Amino acid sequence: MSQTLLEVGAIVKSAREVWDGPGYIVLQDDVIEDIGRGEYPGSRAGMTVVKRPHRVAIPGLVNTHGHAAMTLLRGAGDDLPLMTWLTERVFPMEAKLTEDAIYWGTLLACWEMIRSGTTCFTDMYMSMHKAAAAVEESGMRAVLSWGMVGLDETSARSGIRNSESFVGAWHRQAGGRITVTLGPHAPYTCPPDYLQQVAELAGRLAVPIQIHLSETRTEVDDCLRLYNRTPIAHAASCGLFEHPVLAAHCVHVTDEDIEIMRANDVHVAHNPQSNLKLASGIAPVPSMTQAGLIVGLGTDGAASNNNLDMFEELRLAATLHKAVAFDASILPAAQAFQMATEDGAKAVFLPAGSGTLEKGAAADVTLLDLRSPHLIPTHSLLSNVVYAAGADDVTDVFVAGRALLSNREPQTIDTERVEYEARRIAQALSQ
Amino acid sequence: MSQTLLEVGAIVKSAREVWDGPGYIVLQDDVIEDIGRGEYPGSRAGMTVVKRPHRVAIPGLVNTHGHAAMTLLRGAGDDLPLMTWLTERVFPMEAKLTEDAIYWGTLLACWEMIRSGTTCFTDMYMSMHKAAAAVEESGMRAVLSWGMVGLDETSARSGIRNSESFVGAWHRQAGGRITVTLGPHAPYTCPPDYLQQVAELAGRLAVPIQIHLSETRTEVDDCLRLYNRTPIAHAASCGLFEHPVLAAHCVHVTDEDIEIMRANDVHVAHNPQSNLKLASGIAPVPSMTQAGLIVGLGTDGAASNNNLDMFEELRLAATLHKAVAFDASILPAAQAFQMATEDGAKAVFLPAGSGTLEKGAAADVTLLDLRSPHLIPTHSLLSNVVYAAGADDVTDVFVAGRALLSNREPQTIDTERVEYEARRIAQALSQ
Repeated sequence: MSQTLLEVGAIVKSAREVWDGPGYIVLQDDVIEDIGRGEYPGSRAGMTVVKRPHRVAIPGLVNTHGHAAMTLLRGAGDDLPLMTWLTERVFPMEAKLTEDAIYWGTLLACWEMIRSGTTCFTDMYMSMHKAAAAVEESGMRAVLSWGMVGLDETSARSGIRNSESFVGAWHRQAGGRITVTLGPHAPYTCPPDYLQQVAELAGRLAVPIQIHLSETRTEVDDCLRLYNRTPIAHAASCGLFEHPVLAAHCVHVTDEDIEIMRANDVHVAHNPQSNLKLASGIAPVPSMTQAGLIVGLGTDGAASNNNLDMFEELRLAATLHKAVAFDASILPAAQAFQMATEDGAKAVFLPAGSGTLEKGAAADVTLLDLRSPHLIPTHSLLSNVVYAAGADDVTDVFVAGRALLSNREPQTIDTERVEYEARRIAQALSQ
Repeated sequence: MSQTLLEVGAIVKSAREVWDGPGYIVLQDDVIEDIGRGEYPGSRAGMTVVKRPHRVAIPGLVNTHGHAAMTLLRGAGDDLPLMTWLTERVFPMEAKLTEDAIYWGTLLACWEMIRSGTTCFTDMYMSMHKAAAAVEESGMRAVLSWGMVGLDETSARSGIRNSESFVGAWHRQAGGRITVTLGPHAPYTCPPDYLQQVAELAGRLAVPIQIHLSETRTEVDDCLRLYNRTPIAHAASCGLFEHPVLAAHCVHVTDEDIEIMRANDVHVAHNPQSNLKLASGIAPVPSMTQAGLIVGLGTDGAASNNNLDMFEELRLAATLHKAVAFDASILPAAQAFQMATEDGAKAVFLPAGSGTLEKGAAADVTLLDLRSPHLIPTHSLLSNVVYAAGADDVTDVFVAGRALLSNREPQTIDTERVEYEARRIAQALSQ
């Protein structure tokens, strides 16, 4: 049994409860065993005591959509129309990604995410056993899927085979920190009968599904032309929504789409910065949350963002929709914070309580520097975290009770090695 | 004479020229005396040598609009309609701002801006002699104006008097680091005859003008009702544009407005995050730059942002307009970078060359950590700076040849004292 006592200057337990004064959190193995205001009243015997009187503890941020090893493609193609970017830059480089590349690219992503306060991320990519090995080593929590594309018989079959073996090997492994889901890429890369097969497999393996849906206007137009249905209605008609589904993007959704998602409890990963940079558009998030959908926030891959900083997504989610609606009261700080933490955790199928600092919840905690100029003064701690904090304020990160970042120093990743390997691989990719 | 030799791993001289390999910069007194690739060929005798082999040098960022001491109101009111926010939160607190508060609030802003790589900022507020004292002490470059409001005779007269004495006392002072401009707040707080007086004063004192124009739809509608002209056309008709003018926001401008601004060489401060958060809207920046207007970027005050991080504005400017236009090639990385540096410097009336690292330019330099995970790998250094870098990557800042931040440590500001005073004052404000 391992016990850590965190003594901090303030605590944001959740979007609903902020303690603006000293408090403590006891991490016992991988859960929060106790949390309270003031001094810890119990005995410190046998505990690792971490004193951080000038830090605020918040639940670790949850990144609900991405492609981790795309860090290796960061900046390889920007300011290009989506299809040019994909066909001329991304696909040729991705064709050269080896298992080695996936491992190091994922570790680079983990380093970047830990340093910016994220404790759990979601991934859909290739050679995922190597990504899982990187996650295990980094100490992060992750929801992983082997991307499935059904455009030809060979890739369709290998998608099913890889996913099935990946579920068998890694679901609930790494001390329970890894969840495996199925990852059909999108309706435009997975024909209807393939989506039906995926749905059937999800039922048989009892795992959730993640998929890209309604990211661009072109995707929706094409889907309407081919199937006379929106991507959301089409996914429903293929039986996908009979299983737990996390739908990424949902930029171009109708009120009927939102009603279909609500009726089927489809979760949404909102990726505001990627949607802006790729010129996809702005998702109608206020309509989705008003309908009761669970919406989390995500960075998407580093090739389309170009970083994995969840504070940027948090801030953008809390500001962007105000301007669209010409209403400054839309999506207030507490709601945005909940999307980045508790609702993100729900969106990616973590157990109840995850994404909060409640007793009994997973011991995933991020500490921010209260002495950072961004966070001075403190008229509202929650407002400061949502509208002012940045990656530079993150000093400590705990996942499942273990310190992954301590006083800004990575504890689990050999960052010099990761930098060396990532530069080596990136050079090979661009040749 | 003081000479500093910076040895760095890479240099972004300007949006047009990136050196992706070792180089050097010689800062002599307050200008860049030499810059080159590889090793400095001259003698190092008498020079302060700063070795930063794992840093990239970029021109210091220029923040073209803000209200520095509003750091003291950070988070005091969010998620509220503009008029509620102003009348119920901002104005009552501002009424309590003493000269002491302006001094400490401005120093807090300087600390935050230095730490996030900004070397020059723009300010329009009150008790500006105290703000100027803070700027002088911090070592930053600044373009300051004493806010002028003409809603009654007393404040109108004191606005003129304060501005005139402020110009006399501080214009081109602090070793030339301070520029003073006139600061008529906006057409809705300055009646036409007052704007005419301000224009006349600008001519007499030979200083530029900064003003808020066309920030909200309501402002435009009211102006049309009152004067049968848009705020831009109205400002022109009051003679304001016969002098150099920096117009903040310009969110709701017509093609005719843009043509008036072009014909009069009116500069624009684009504040994307403030415009989103206050639900003002999204400025038609691509139309303005295509028309040839000089557009810089700004944070606005910390009460409406809520931080002073120019990397966020840079990233938002480079991504937001893509989604609005559904065109990923709009406002590419180089253009956004130019807006945050060289065009920002032009916008706030700094001498030619400012905002670049060209020989002879002002010695305002920011260094970023090339070993930050955000900046690995390096397919494109400029893309990494625009789309991935953050305040956490800033390690060193020089203004006018002097180190204000060295290996992340502030060199000119007693940050513990600033934190103490800012918290003390903020507490009094909220009582």
